[in-house]
Amino acid sequence: MSFRAHLESLVTKVDGALAASIMGFDGIPVETHPPEAPPDLELSTAWVEYGNLLSQLKSAAEVLKTGPVQEVSINTEKVLTVMRLLTPEYFLVLALKPEGNYGKARYALRIAAPMVKTEL
Amino acid sequence: MSFRAHLESLVTKVDGALAASIMGFDGIPVETHPPEAPPDLELSTAWVEYGNLLSQLKSAAEVLKTGPVQEVSINTEKVLTVMRLLTPEYFLVLALKPEGNYGKARYALRIAAPMVKTEL
Repeated sequence: MSFRAHLESLVTKVDGALAASIMGFDGIPVETHPPEAPPDLELSTAWVEYGNLLSQLKSAAEVLKTGPVQEVSINTEKVLTVMRLLTPEYFLVLALKPEGNYGKARYALRIAAPMVKTEL
Repeated sequence: MSFRAHLESLVTKVDGALAASIMGFDGIPVETHPPEAPPDLELSTAWVEYGNLLSQLKSAAEVLKTGPVQEVSINTEKVLTVMRLLTPEYFLVLALKPEGNYGKARYALRIAAPMVKTEL
């Protein structure tokens, strides 16, 4: 299954999904679906910023006693964002509308992550 | 209702809750319940770190088009942490076990936040 197919499946399965992406912690996306996400939200800019924070969080987690970070969610007025760590270099991200199915988004990412990971 | 009573109610209502706190972005807790959280997890150290990241996220959100940050969740192997912004100075945080009721935690924080806010 291609990266695109995994992302397409995520966006299709989750009600209210806006876009999904495999992102590098360096801020460079490997693949995004749909390629043209709602332009007014500038999701890709937000993801670069979030990836940067996630990266700091990974380093911080090494000295914390709470264990490695698996999932981070950042919810704003206009967008819910769920991120799941894949490898030390990459993470999976799914953005959805505030009224979208957040529980399903978490579940779908948890299922998709190991499959995407084996292909990275 | 005192801060302590709000936090106690949060911890009691949410299955699997470990501890709740009203934290300043400067890393200083206003109030925590229970005062002695599980010592092996060092939750208060994690919260200071998370607060620091939340603070950066607030600043980043000002230039992002996704709107103000309302809720952030950081989930590790051993602890799920849900945070909700109260004011530019304070946030509410609830830590729960990985098998705890995450949906209820988000809901309870959403309901408690405006009440705690009026008392800050």
